[in-house]
Amino acid sequence: MFEFKYYTPTKVIFGKNTETKVADLIKEFGGKKVLIHYGKGSVIRSGLMQKVTDTLDAAGISYISLGGAVPNPRLSLVYEGIDLCKKEGVDFILALGGGSAIDSAKAIGYGVANEGDVWDFYVGKRKPKGCLPIGVILTIAATGSEMSDSSVITNEEGLFKRGCNSDYCRPKFAIMNPELTMTLPDYQTACGCADIMMHTMERYFTQGGNMEITDALAEGLLKTVIKNAKILVKEPKNYDARAEIMWAGSLAHNGLTGCGSDGGDWSPHKLEHEIGGMFDIAHGAGLAAVWGSWARYVYKDCLMRFKRFAVNVMEVENSGSDEEIALKGIEAMEAFYREINMPTNLRELGVNATDEQLSEIAHKCAIGVSGETGSAKRLKEKDMLAIYTACR
Amino acid sequence: MFEFKYYTPTKVIFGKNTETKVADLIKEFGGKKVLIHYGKGSVIRSGLMQKVTDTLDAAGISYISLGGAVPNPRLSLVYEGIDLCKKEGVDFILALGGGSAIDSAKAIGYGVANEGDVWDFYVGKRKPKGCLPIGVILTIAATGSEMSDSSVITNEEGLFKRGCNSDYCRPKFAIMNPELTMTLPDYQTACGCADIMMHTMERYFTQGGNMEITDALAEGLLKTVIKNAKILVKEPKNYDARAEIMWAGSLAHNGLTGCGSDGGDWSPHKLEHEIGGMFDIAHGAGLAAVWGSWARYVYKDCLMRFKRFAVNVMEVENSGSDEEIALKGIEAMEAFYREINMPTNLRELGVNATDEQLSEIAHKCAIGVSGETGSAKRLKEKDMLAIYTACR
Repeated sequence: MFEFKYYTPTKVIFGKNTETKVADLIKEFGGKKVLIHYGKGSVIRSGLMQKVTDTLDAAGISYISLGGAVPNPRLSLVYEGIDLCKKEGVDFILALGGGSAIDSAKAIGYGVANEGDVWDFYVGKRKPKGCLPIGVILTIAATGSEMSDSSVITNEEGLFKRGCNSDYCRPKFAIMNPELTMTLPDYQTACGCADIMMHTMERYFTQGGNMEITDALAEGLLKTVIKNAKILVKEPKNYDARAEIMWAGSLAHNGLTGCGSDGGDWSPHKLEHEIGGMFDIAHGAGLAAVWGSWARYVYKDCLMRFKRFAVNVMEVENSGSDEEIALKGIEAMEAFYREINMPTNLRELGVNATDEQLSEIAHKCAIGVSGETGSAKRLKEKDMLAIYTACR
Repeated sequence: MFEFKYYTPTKVIFGKNTETKVADLIKEFGGKKVLIHYGKGSVIRSGLMQKVTDTLDAAGISYISLGGAVPNPRLSLVYEGIDLCKKEGVDFILALGGGSAIDSAKAIGYGVANEGDVWDFYVGKRKPKGCLPIGVILTIAATGSEMSDSSVITNEEGLFKRGCNSDYCRPKFAIMNPELTMTLPDYQTACGCADIMMHTMERYFTQGGNMEITDALAEGLLKTVIKNAKILVKEPKNYDARAEIMWAGSLAHNGLTGCGSDGGDWSPHKLEHEIGGMFDIAHGAGLAAVWGSWARYVYKDCLMRFKRFAVNVMEVENSGSDEEIALKGIEAMEAFYREINMPTNLRELGVNATDEQLSEIAHKCAIGVSGETGSAKRLKEKDMLAIYTACR
């Protein structure tokens, strides 16, 4: 096992009607002038925005709002948000929505609290030295951004999708009411489940350093998501299943399931980021589409972890050769993706990529990781291209 | 499932030699004048104190120290610490040790940050409105106090042992180097394991509100502790086993394993507190001594949880009646206690209590919980006396 830091300061308020506590929480963390940041307007149509502004009005907290955050949130909107916050003297950002609104809010928070171009932090030129405090009312269980140190932004110029990680952007609070996720399209719900599982799987498939307790927690989390994701295919209004998935989403990405590991693999995320940057697909679906091909490409180099995954998570019978068991685990995972209507290749994802496009994203992916990435197996540009080609 | 709050702001720095980071961490959280609070001097004999003061000296952080925290930490020392901090202008408390030093540090922190008698918070007369910031270098994996909101203090006048819970006292940071636990006597190591497991079991045995993901995490944690506690009986210097136990200790009591539950049962803790208040035994051993009698007294009222525990944690075969399976789980747990040299009754704990003493602690216990406590089964004074009598 490796040395680790674990830091999850986000105050989570979980349960029905918890959104009514938003004003008290903003006050607790010192917010006086709030930017409410949201996405394409579903929070207005659902009535959540009205509830929130009523609560802020009653508490005497002033606010402005900025919508428009989209999946693979755009740098241009981030710049707009930074200008708006500076002009209006905003000291707190409340994100209403899922990963798009939260990641975009974090980027705006970085931009306000630091001098210079915020994109510098995403391409690794500089490190942020602070962030405006962020609060979240979560409406999609997926990215785990509500507790994570991560923010991923797409620069429209060149379609580069890049992430920035720092403790400064970890939200001060996250309000999680599973009922708010019930109006999601089934496809988005399933995408969220795929994303949640991948956050833990990325930390699980490594060459070493794992702790037994971390593995036990990770396996328990993955099995819980699998079980409840299947329930939600048939019963999208099942509160308990929504709650299990929602809490799993936060725990999958707040660091808990990586304690003691070497930091994780993250190749599927890197591979998907470039697909998402070029084709603008849903992140979770992109992960599902690329995972099987990645797994088949790398499993022999990380055989005992894939075997353990097969037995402990996918409940494959522990008989036959290690390779056979590992492969059955990969097949069982792909069968699960299909059961929740997730793609297992690019075609099912709706992407018909040309050879040139695959070469371009493999090249971009390699640049993004400075040539090489991965723990289960180290991947270079040629490996990335082979995986993209295999999942076409 | 129930609504829940999850708030674990403690920054954990885990691994070998992490104690060298203490000065940076104190500075990060604004400490300028530090009280180093410790126990009976093992941190001096081990050389840890010298390491810490060298680091603080090098960083130009001034400090004073106060030793003497004992298991079942005493109110009189807390008063002494409060006076000392006020006189010296202390703004940060660094606890070196385990639950005794940390709980005592928290109480001192309350006393400095609030007017009036600090004991008021422990008997529920008033609620604290703040606490001096606390940092921890952990040397015993047991109480989980390094991440918890809990502090338990014994008032020598009447030997009342009482707890106070609030987010204010959650440590700002916890440095955890498993090597620092290697010099512990085997008995203390085993006591720690018993305590760690009980923190999660208290949250597990409830009448309802449980989340599947919480149960999965709890069961994974318990199995990990059982496995590694057995290893430490034979190999007390096994670093990985020490690390597993140490991290489990924090996760067992930071709130994670209770999310969505009704708050837990906590009767074994309440029952043990009174034994500890009167006889001054090791907390973990006291819990082990009382658990079996408690479990046999209540299991029929919480049968499906005890059955689930038997199968999923103690690996009892899932055949026979629910009652049989549940009882086998209790027996397996007692066998585990014996395997790690923990007592399963008061006699084995070294306590020969008279009828009068048992009546007295049952009475005190009932007063302490305002007459009634428990979730698996509600217990009144007569039930408490029956359990004490059964475990004599």
